[in-house]
Amino acid sequence: MAQSPYQQLEQEFRRLHAFRGAASLLRWDAAVMMPRGSADIRGEQLAALDSECHALLTSPKVSRLIERAQANQAQLEDWQLANLREMRRERDRAIATPLSLVTRLARATSMAEVRWLEARQENNFALFAPHLEEVVALTRDKAQVLSKALDLAPYDALIDGFSPGFLSADIDQLFRVMGRRLPNLIREAIELQAQRPALPLTGKVSVSKQRALAHEVMRALGFPFDRGRLDEASHAFTEGVWGDVRVTTRFDINEPFTGLMGALHEVGQAMYDLGLPAAWRDQPVGRDRGMALEESQSLLLEMLIGRSRPFLAWLRPLLEKHFGCTGPQWEVENLYQTLIHVRRSAIRADADELTYPVHIMLRYELEKQIFDGTLPVRDLPEAWRTAFDRRLGLRPATDTEGCLQDVHWAVGSFGYFPSYALGSFIAAQLYESLRADSEHFDAEIAAGHFGGLFEWLRQNVHGRGASVGAQELIRAATGKTLSAAPWLRYVEAKYLEQHAGDAVTAAAPDPAAAAAAT
Amino acid sequence: MAQSPYQQLEQEFRRLHAFRGAASLLRWDAAVMMPRGSADIRGEQLAALDSECHALLTSPKVSRLIERAQANQAQLEDWQLANLREMRRERDRAIATPLSLVTRLARATSMAEVRWLEARQENNFALFAPHLEEVVALTRDKAQVLSKALDLAPYDALIDGFSPGFLSADIDQLFRVMGRRLPNLIREAIELQAQRPALPLTGKVSVSKQRALAHEVMRALGFPFDRGRLDEASHAFTEGVWGDVRVTTRFDINEPFTGLMGALHEVGQAMYDLGLPAAWRDQPVGRDRGMALEESQSLLLEMLIGRSRPFLAWLRPLLEKHFGCTGPQWEVENLYQTLIHVRRSAIRADADELTYPVHIMLRYELEKQIFDGTLPVRDLPEAWRTAFDRRLGLRPATDTEGCLQDVHWAVGSFGYFPSYALGSFIAAQLYESLRADSEHFDAEIAAGHFGGLFEWLRQNVHGRGASVGAQELIRAATGKTLSAAPWLRYVEAKYLEQHAGDAVTAAAPDPAAAAAAT
Repeated sequence: MAQSPYQQLEQEFRRLHAFRGAASLLRWDAAVMMPRGSADIRGEQLAALDSECHALLTSPKVSRLIERAQANQAQLEDWQLANLREMRRERDRAIATPLSLVTRLARATSMAEVRWLEARQENNFALFAPHLEEVVALTRDKAQVLSKALDLAPYDALIDGFSPGFLSADIDQLFRVMGRRLPNLIREAIELQAQRPALPLTGKVSVSKQRALAHEVMRALGFPFDRGRLDEASHAFTEGVWGDVRVTTRFDINEPFTGLMGALHEVGQAMYDLGLPAAWRDQPVGRDRGMALEESQSLLLEMLIGRSRPFLAWLRPLLEKHFGCTGPQWEVENLYQTLIHVRRSAIRADADELTYPVHIMLRYELEKQIFDGTLPVRDLPEAWRTAFDRRLGLRPATDTEGCLQDVHWAVGSFGYFPSYALGSFIAAQLYESLRADSEHFDAEIAAGHFGGLFEWLRQNVHGRGASVGAQELIRAATGKTLSAAPWLRYVEAKYLEQHAGDAVTAAAPDPAAAAAAT
Repeated sequence: MAQSPYQQLEQEFRRLHAFRGAASLLRWDAAVMMPRGSADIRGEQLAALDSECHALLTSPKVSRLIERAQANQAQLEDWQLANLREMRRERDRAIATPLSLVTRLARATSMAEVRWLEARQENNFALFAPHLEEVVALTRDKAQVLSKALDLAPYDALIDGFSPGFLSADIDQLFRVMGRRLPNLIREAIELQAQRPALPLTGKVSVSKQRALAHEVMRALGFPFDRGRLDEASHAFTEGVWGDVRVTTRFDINEPFTGLMGALHEVGQAMYDLGLPAAWRDQPVGRDRGMALEESQSLLLEMLIGRSRPFLAWLRPLLEKHFGCTGPQWEVENLYQTLIHVRRSAIRADADELTYPVHIMLRYELEKQIFDGTLPVRDLPEAWRTAFDRRLGLRPATDTEGCLQDVHWAVGSFGYFPSYALGSFIAAQLYESLRADSEHFDAEIAAGHFGGLFEWLRQNVHGRGASVGAQELIRAATGKTLSAAPWLRYVEAKYLEQHAGDAVTAAAPDPAAAAAAT
C-alpha cells in the first residue's frame, strides 16, 4: 500500500532524527573521548551532518508533503496533528534561515569564540568587541528573517529557538515579580546564614570514590545504565537521544559535591530524555519541550530535591560508605547548610540557587539592549559593571570576571539565558504540585524511593513530549499559569527558615503577596 | 569563479568522507562505549548514514559531474585522474547494487547473524543453514550485477569489494605455490619446536600493567596519541579516519602477550591510515589500497617485526619495567620461542603465523564451491571436517569449532577471507625489500628506533594512498610482482632454523625453488 503524505513525512523526519542522533554522539565524543588534535576532522563531520539536516528540512519534497498532509488533516490522530505542527515549525525555521546566513554565522561565531577565549585570558575586551559586533549583526539578520516566518517579534524569534512557547513579555513579567523581592531576600538569607555558619568540609576525596558514589546514586534514581552512560568532561552536559543518553560531570578532589551535584543536574535532563514517549521517539512530537523545561528537570533534581534534608538524610550513609567520612561536618544538617550556602559572586557558574537568577536577569537586560542597539557593544564592559553593582552590590574586578565570563554571546546564543531562570520557575511550580499530589514525598525521598517522583514527572511532563506547548504543559501539570510565586515561596521557606532544622515544609508567608505590596 | 565539474566532485566526495567518518566513529562507539541496550538506535543511525552515502554515489548529479570531468581530463593532474578513477569505481559499484538489493541483504544478514550466534552456541548448524542459503542467494545476485558493471567474473567482483586489484586467478596461483610446501613445513616446524620446548610464562599480569606497556610501545612506534586512541573491546579492531584513528585490543590477565600483539596488529593498520597523504585525506584517492594491503601492514608489525628477536630484545626491559617479571622464561630467546610456537588448532583466530594460511585456503576453497553451487549449504559441515582433516590432520569435534566459528559468511562477506593470506604474502615481500634497503634494520629495531621502518612504508605504501592499483603498488615498492616466494623464504628461515639463537637472517635454501621441484 502506498504511504500517505503524512507517513512519508514521518519517514523523512526519522532520517533527520538519525542524523541528529549521530551528531549528538559525535559532540559527546568530542568532549569526552576525542584526541585533542582531531577537532578539525570532527568539525567537518558535524558540519556535513548539519547541512544534511538543513537540506532535508528545506527540500521541496518535505514542503510538498507538509502541504498535502495538512490538506488531509481529518485523517490524522491528535498526536499526529501535533507532530505535523512540530514538523512545520522546524521546516519554517530552516527555510527562513538560508544556508548562506547559517554559513556566515557559523564562520563568524567560530572566529568570535577563538577571540573570546583570548580576550578572556588576557582580560582584554577590545580583542573580542569587533567579533561580537559581527555576531550581533548577523544574529539580528537571523532574528529578522525568523520574525517574519514565525510571526514573532525578532527577539522572541530567538527565544523560540531555545524555549518555544515563551515570549519576552512573559519573561519580563516573571522577572518583575522576582526582581522586586530578590535583593532583600538575598540580603536576609546571607545575614541569617552568617549567624549559623556551617562547618567546612575539609580533606580531599579521590575521583574514583566520587565516581562510585555518583554511580550508586544514579542507579538508585533509576538511571538505566543499559541505555546511558556517565563520563567525565571539563564541564557537565548531556548528549544523546532517547535510548542512548550520555551524561557527563566533572569531579574535583577538593570539592566532594561538585561532581555529584553536576551529575544530578544532568540526570534530571537525562531522565526527561529517557521518559519521552517511546512510540514517538524518532519524531518531532517526541522531543523535549525546549530548554526551559529541560532546565526545570535539572534544577528540580539538583536544587529542590538534591539540596534538601530528606535527600541528604538518604545520602549520608552512602557518603560514609564511599568516602569513609564521619564527624560533625558530615552530619545531615551541616551538609544541608553547606549545600545551600548563599554568597554574592561575580561568576554565574559558581552562583548558588538564590543569586543565580540575578546573573540571568542582568544578562537578559543587557542582551536585549545590545540586540536592539541601545547598548553599543563597546560600552558593554562598563554597563555590565554598573548593572552588576546595582543588582548584587559587587563590581567585578576584571572583564574576565565580568562580561567575558560566558561563551553564549560569542556563539550567537542570544535569547538563551532566560531559559535558565524559566527553568527555576517551572521547577518550583512543578515541585509544589508534585508535593501536593504525594502524601509522603519527603519520607519517600529520605528512604531513597524515587519511583513516585519520576512516575509523576513521566505522567505530567516527560511522557507528553512536544505534543502541547510549554505553557500549556505547565498549566496541565500544575493547574496554574506559570508564575514566580511558587519559586519565591520555595526560596523563602528554604533560605529564611528561622531555626536550622525547621521542617522545610513549614508554613511561610506568601512572598508574592508580600512582593506585590512593596 | 565557478567550480569545475571535477572540483564539484571533490566537494561531493568530501561530504561522503564526512558521513563515512561519522559512521566509523559510531561503529567504534558501539563496540567500545555504547550501553548494551542501545544497539537498535545505533543500527538506525548507521543505516541512515549508509543510505545517505548510497544516495550520494548514485545521484544523477554525481554521474553527470563524472561524465563532464572525464570529458575534460586533459586539465587534470595525475593524482586527480587517479581520484576520478576511484570516484567512478565507487559510483559504478553503488549504481550496480540497487538500494532494494542492499536492503534485502542487510535484512537477511542481520537475521543470519542472530541465527549464526544461536547455532554456534547450540552447535546446531541446521538452525543457521536456511539463513546462510538466503544470504548466499542474495550475494550471488549482488555478484551478478557487480560482475556486469565492473567487467569482472562474479566471484572476482566480490573480492574487488575488499581487495581491489586481485583476481581469484592470482590467489589460486599464490595458494598453489604455498600449498605445495606448507603441509611439510608445518610438520617440520612442529617437530623441531618439540625438540626445544619453551618454558611456560606462568602467572597473571593485570590489565592496567598490560595497558601501560601497550601505551609505551605505541608511543615508541610513533603512534600519535593526539590523533588517535587505544581502547579495549571484545576483539581487536581499528576504526576512524586519517586524523582520528581508534585502535582497540583485548587484554587477558592470563596471557600477557595477547593484548600487546593485538595492539601491534591494529597499530600496523593505524599507521597506514595515519600515513595516507594528508592533502588527499577526504578524497577516494587518499584511501588505503584495500584490505589485503591493510592486513599486510598489520602482519608486518605484529608477526614479522613484533615476533622477532630484535624487537623482543628491545621489549624485554619494558616487560620488566611494567610487568616486574624476571627469570629465564622472560629471557629474549624464550619469549621468541613462545611467540612463534606452532600448533595445529581448529580455530582460525587462535592460529599461529604458519598454520593461519591453511585456515584461509580451506575457507577460500569452500566458499567458492558454495558460491558456484557445487557445494550445497547443507553439506558444508561435513565438507569442512573432511577438508580440515586433509589439510591439517585434524577433525574439529563440533561445528561450533568447525564451520560455525566465523561470522563472515553470515554477514555475506564472501571474497573477504583471501585478503588475510594476501596480506601475509605482501607483508613478507615488503619486509624483504625494506630489509634490503636498510643496512642496519635489525639493529634499529633492537634499539627501538622505528622511524626508518615507517619512513620506508610511508614512501612506498602509505603515502601512495589509492593512486595506483594494489599490484602496481607492490611492484613499485619491491621491484617484483607479488609472489609466495618471499613469504616461504621468511617462514622457512624463521621456523626451520636449525639452532635456536641462529641469526634470523641466516641464509636459507630458496623454498620457492624447492617447492617448484616437488
